[in-house]
Amino acid sequence: MDSQRSKIKIGLFGFGTVGKGIYEVLRKSKNAHAEIVGICVRDISKPRPGDVDKALFTDRPADILENPEIDLIVEVIDKAEPAFGIVKAALERGIPVVSGNKAMLAAHLPELIELQRRHDTALLYDASSCGSIPVIRNLEEYYDNDLLLEVKGILNGSSNFILSRVFDHGENYADALRRAQELGFAESDPSFDIEGYDSLFKLVIITVHALGVYVSPKDVFTYGISHIHDSDIRYAREKRVKIKLVAQVVKIGEDRFTMFVMPEFVGPSKYIYSVDDEYNGVVIRGECYDRQFMFGKGAGSLPTASSLLSDIMARQHNYRYGYKKMAYLTLPEYTTDVTLRVYVRYTTTNVPHVLRFSHIYEQFVSDESNYIIGDIKLSELIAKRPALDAPDLFLANIPLFFADKD
Amino acid sequence: MDSQRSKIKIGLFGFGTVGKGIYEVLRKSKNAHAEIVGICVRDISKPRPGDVDKALFTDRPADILENPEIDLIVEVIDKAEPAFGIVKAALERGIPVVSGNKAMLAAHLPELIELQRRHDTALLYDASSCGSIPVIRNLEEYYDNDLLLEVKGILNGSSNFILSRVFDHGENYADALRRAQELGFAESDPSFDIEGYDSLFKLVIITVHALGVYVSPKDVFTYGISHIHDSDIRYAREKRVKIKLVAQVVKIGEDRFTMFVMPEFVGPSKYIYSVDDEYNGVVIRGECYDRQFMFGKGAGSLPTASSLLSDIMARQHNYRYGYKKMAYLTLPEYTTDVTLRVYVRYTTTNVPHVLRFSHIYEQFVSDESNYIIGDIKLSELIAKRPALDAPDLFLANIPLFFADKD
Repeated sequence: MDSQRSKIKIGLFGFGTVGKGIYEVLRKSKNAHAEIVGICVRDISKPRPGDVDKALFTDRPADILENPEIDLIVEVIDKAEPAFGIVKAALERGIPVVSGNKAMLAAHLPELIELQRRHDTALLYDASSCGSIPVIRNLEEYYDNDLLLEVKGILNGSSNFILSRVFDHGENYADALRRAQELGFAESDPSFDIEGYDSLFKLVIITVHALGVYVSPKDVFTYGISHIHDSDIRYAREKRVKIKLVAQVVKIGEDRFTMFVMPEFVGPSKYIYSVDDEYNGVVIRGECYDRQFMFGKGAGSLPTASSLLSDIMARQHNYRYGYKKMAYLTLPEYTTDVTLRVYVRYTTTNVPHVLRFSHIYEQFVSDESNYIIGDIKLSELIAKRPALDAPDLFLANIPLFFADKD
Repeated sequence: MDSQRSKIKIGLFGFGTVGKGIYEVLRKSKNAHAEIVGICVRDISKPRPGDVDKALFTDRPADILENPEIDLIVEVIDKAEPAFGIVKAALERGIPVVSGNKAMLAAHLPELIELQRRHDTALLYDASSCGSIPVIRNLEEYYDNDLLLEVKGILNGSSNFILSRVFDHGENYADALRRAQELGFAESDPSFDIEGYDSLFKLVIITVHALGVYVSPKDVFTYGISHIHDSDIRYAREKRVKIKLVAQVVKIGEDRFTMFVMPEFVGPSKYIYSVDDEYNGVVIRGECYDRQFMFGKGAGSLPTASSLLSDIMARQHNYRYGYKKMAYLTLPEYTTDVTLRVYVRYTTTNVPHVLRFSHIYEQFVSDESNYIIGDIKLSELIAKRPALDAPDLFLANIPLFFADKD
């Protein structure tokens, strides 16, 4: 068919782990028909790998943005706000962009969608969610119908790696975190990973493509794994479940949905139970096809770079997201008025006094620590969010049907 | 975005399990903007569900093909050759087609690709491979690069269901087969499923989209599970592996690939080990992203129908397969000159005499049955294919690196 694909000329912003990865992947892929013609970095004096042409580097964004030869900008810098400035400037010039910057995307998606429309250009970002798993494009293109009920998964490789070390290898939390950082799985700010923000940003992006609705990250309940304690791990082991950091968006009836990021007790019958180490796994549930499970490397230089490569190659046939679901006649409404069953472990905080449970199933008190298992509104958890930051407290979701596969 | 999607008018060929499924799914999906305006069936006198408008039915293909109102034809009839006639006639009239007919596609893909090109229209068939798992579209769009090394999976739900009953539930083979047929997992001709042809046809289609090369089904080694015997199951259990019917296409070095369908000993560390019952699972291996695993329902009325729905909705934004990889400058060449390690169990056939092994690792002889484990060329297996049909003989592939995850 189209045997004469034109060679795409790429301007690259950022040359960290992922930037180097995309450089290497493009060199490996003989059919990619793409080449990097300029690389903008913050510190041009920094030493670079010897096999990269020094003449490519600049520290002036304008050298890339105003280069008429450049067809596509690939943005893989670390910080959200400088990235947004660059992506916005590129789109305003009508230059398509490929980005993997979830923090930037989660904060600015509505404006970025509008910029694409107004300037008739494209922003692709499959690499932003779950590295090499093509979750965004599948939600956008393949599950383009209103039969989708739920997207749930382990979206952060770093926190999952830490929990795997703790659960399967008996390491303590601090050692596991250090090892994740050494292996390059953790973001430069580890709180992104372990406090759930990285998962949250991905969930916000996924929800736009799953249900056609943008929810601001600040409106989504997010609770991470940094307060996990030996007693929580012991409790989970006794119940033969693992604790995983899970992000989910779930339809509630016909016209509402909820979403949150929270540690969860995951039983062995669930698909995500066996998603270990730095892997990501996503379950897409629909009315007719039941559950689809996608599994792959969610972090690391080359997996992320190969996802960026897929977006680069999609631009060779002018692919862009249609945001089709945003145009649906009836969009579901975001609600936090749903009841969750949770486990709350605490020592000094007076949890029964602080949190209003609608029903308490178990209450355990001991010298070492206490816990409650009870039903509570998500809106109540949001209202009491600051209290949940107490260092003696750990919270985990207990899915209502442990036996169900998801 | 495109808020004013036009309502697609569908002509449906076939109203069996899948045809009824697509009728139901279209009714459920409020945003599908598609309606069935005619249904062509072989026997118009057959009773139909009461809630389907009788006026829709016809037994004359021309009533659908010559209806100018129809934008899209969905072909879900059972037989390959009548289906090909209909699909060809539709494409020649410039009418796009959605089909799930793997036997038809595997036999006629080169001509069907040429027909799409010549008449500037589209044929989509994601439902043909692995039901609800979007494997074709992901290979075509997302893994559109030459870093793909292998696609391997359990592509047939019915044979997998049978093997699961035998391995996990201790049923005998005949009972398991009968149960699969009762549950509607088995094709109308069960030999399609259990002799590996269904997997083979899917593998041929997958290979076109994975590597850009069409290989005729008759040139691919295919061996099913119908000769499996208690002694094979006992042997596999002793080795703590399961026997699965596996289809695979694998790159050999830079410029060659091989493919085959064969029972395989699958160890517990492999992703496909836990693909049980009627589920399908596909592993896509690439140079950079390591392994991606996709898992879902591969058979049944609604999962297949939801996959057809995805193709129908893709037509609303004029999606068509680009067959981009067929235009690659260097296409890998199909080879059968590769060495496999196999297990061959036999009683009366003189296997050491019939098959030329390059190396024999184990040879076991007993009153009940004998087996050999040895290295053999795939080309030798193809040359001796008729002898392998002896009812006393069973063959299974032993992947060289049992410990490796795939």
